[in-house]
Amino acid sequence: MRQSFLVFEIIPSEMKLPPFFEEDRLAVEEQLEKLLPSASVRPTIIHEAMRYSVFAGGKRVRPVLCLESARIFSNDVKAALHPGCAIEFIHSYSLIHDDLPALDDDDLRRGKPTCHKKFGEAMAILAGDALLTLAFEVIAATPVAAERRVAMLTEISGAAGTVNGMVGGQVADLEATGQKSDGETLEYIHRSKTAALIRASVTAGALAAGAPEEDVARLRRFGETIGWAFQVTDDILDVEESSAALGKTAGKDMAQQKTTYPALYGLERSHEIANELASKAIAELQVYGVRAEHLRSVAEFLVERRA
Amino acid sequence: MRQSFLVFEIIPSEMKLPPFFEEDRLAVEEQLEKLLPSASVRPTIIHEAMRYSVFAGGKRVRPVLCLESARIFSNDVKAALHPGCAIEFIHSYSLIHDDLPALDDDDLRRGKPTCHKKFGEAMAILAGDALLTLAFEVIAATPVAAERRVAMLTEISGAAGTVNGMVGGQVADLEATGQKSDGETLEYIHRSKTAALIRASVTAGALAAGAPEEDVARLRRFGETIGWAFQVTDDILDVEESSAALGKTAGKDMAQQKTTYPALYGLERSHEIANELASKAIAELQVYGVRAEHLRSVAEFLVERRA
Repeated sequence: MRQSFLVFEIIPSEMKLPPFFEEDRLAVEEQLEKLLPSASVRPTIIHEAMRYSVFAGGKRVRPVLCLESARIFSNDVKAALHPGCAIEFIHSYSLIHDDLPALDDDDLRRGKPTCHKKFGEAMAILAGDALLTLAFEVIAATPVAAERRVAMLTEISGAAGTVNGMVGGQVADLEATGQKSDGETLEYIHRSKTAALIRASVTAGALAAGAPEEDVARLRRFGETIGWAFQVTDDILDVEESSAALGKTAGKDMAQQKTTYPALYGLERSHEIANELASKAIAELQVYGVRAEHLRSVAEFLVERRA
Repeated sequence: MRQSFLVFEIIPSEMKLPPFFEEDRLAVEEQLEKLLPSASVRPTIIHEAMRYSVFAGGKRVRPVLCLESARIFSNDVKAALHPGCAIEFIHSYSLIHDDLPALDDDDLRRGKPTCHKKFGEAMAILAGDALLTLAFEVIAATPVAAERRVAMLTEISGAAGTVNGMVGGQVADLEATGQKSDGETLEYIHRSKTAALIRASVTAGALAAGAPEEDVARLRRFGETIGWAFQVTDDILDVEESSAALGKTAGKDMAQQKTTYPALYGLERSHEIANELASKAIAELQVYGVRAEHLRSVAEFLVERRA
């Protein structure tokens, strides 16, 4: 569940962040701040650990996708902040647990000590558990009709789970480490580990904005496909970027003997695959014309991250 | 988050299980079986690990409380199986993570190897994560009105969280290990670590059965108080029972230098406290007369477990 956004923080001249992105991101930061229990609330240490990891950086791609998906259907996207932040909490929990010694055993995340290096293993395990739990408290409190909240809950819990969801992808990824995987396995891992939660971000935004079922289904297809393209791009970046630019050990996939798109198909074909997937995803948005302008540019950003 | 039900499995002559309990328990087992992904679903290993821990034993106290709370308000308690099983999944996840080397470092749980001893640490962490996630998928699918599902989600996620919830209690418990706690801290730990989820079991049952808000509030008070009594009883059992009867290292609280009710107030006074709390809880049920008969006997069972 590695992501690698630090490249933009280090090489701002290569940033291709669309201008509204920063505005969305600020709204998200503010809402994350409100939704996380204060570090002065008992037991303080767990709230410190949760806040440490949530505010350790990151471009908030998932909440921004959620907001911009909502914007297709409504000018008031405030309700989408709740599921967007819930998904960011799930993303944070997955990174904390993924970094643990028993899993990836990473000491650094975005250039800072990982949660267990800073707070100890016990607290890191519990902070992950707590963020996952908080995500569902936040969904329950989303200011939309109960039916919509339940629909979001179904989408998001499914995407985070074991059957074609994030934990399932993580398990398959662990099983594949150190051995050569075929294309079908690699696709399963990428779609489950990464694309599922991206898909949920987009569908939750549409649900928050009151989109009809047909549109939710269209956004679901868009999210699934762009999420897949996003992970293929991540594979490519792992090979292409230097360690410094990524703020983590680049080429780590290779060191861990993980099968990746570049390993299986070569770099050139991997770029083609990412672009094909992105085009397919963006084609779903055509029907919305200019209303999907922002979401379209987030999608483009996700596959052109390297500038 | 230790519990100790094995005493009944080993010394059946001392069982005081009410007769309907077994019937409820069988319904719960059947529903747990239905709700857990089959061990043949990919990735199979995580589903095996989840099933191993959920079916490792346990009296299913929480789902039974949920069913019997529902029975006060309806003869058809089937809908309460969903939140009851969701809470059992949360309970199972908490045991798996609690047993990890970084936390309690337990090799045995109910006489069997703990999840990480059987499947390795990585898989145990992920199996816990997956059970917590599945709990919320199950709440989303509960066959009651969306408003009721959202209300359950609020109750259950809150009870499992950090602010006066299960993870908060667990953190406070970790912090208190090896030092002498005062009565107020001990109360916080017991109410958060154990009583909160018991309270959620009872309120979720009432919600599933369509109880009016006033009754949900009454059941919430009942659940909180009986849950507290339950944990005081657990402290007492830890001191009184032999290691063999408990299927775990009894006297472990003492070995870990955890402050317990017997340590702070003595055994006799601890028994009194447990009984006073139980009486206070059961008094809440008086208004329901014979309709609360079952719930009343589960409550009595929870504080008279030692026979």
